[in-house]
Amino acid sequence: MNKSEISVAPMHRLCKKAGAERVSEAAAKELERVLNEIGVEIAKTALDYSIHSGRKTIKAKDIEIAARKAMRK
Amino acid sequence: MNKSEISVAPMHRLCKKAGAERVSEAAAKELERVLNEIGVEIAKTALDYSIHSGRKTIKAKDIEIAARKAMRK
Repeated sequence: MNKSEISVAPMHRLCKKAGAERVSEAAAKELERVLNEIGVEIAKTALDYSIHSGRKTIKAKDIEIAARKAMRK
Repeated sequence: MNKSEISVAPMHRLCKKAGAERVSEAAAKELERVLNEIGVEIAKTALDYSIHSGRKTIKAKDIEIAARKAMRK
């Protein structure tokens, strides 16, 4: 449950994309940890929606609604 | 700006970890898109915090506070 599915290298690129000049290794690892946690949370909520709809397959619409629930906006 | 830094394969594993039996390809792609978007948002907020602290390097503590701001809880 604790192993992250997202790797660290893309996190550096993601921060550069956001405009950062430099990103510490610890910051990249923290972003990886956080996005993994958010991802599992969204997937769990999406699973609830799929089960509620009588399906065993998570569909894109389940992820969409779960993501909206997870975020402030 | 639109190219996602996170890949699709880990999204399937992330959903399985959340307890899903099956995940559609479109759902995995949507989760990838959403996490990429959330990641950039968190990184941008973290960058603001680092600049506010007179640094040019994003540190783990910037990511932590940015992630708390981005999520509902």
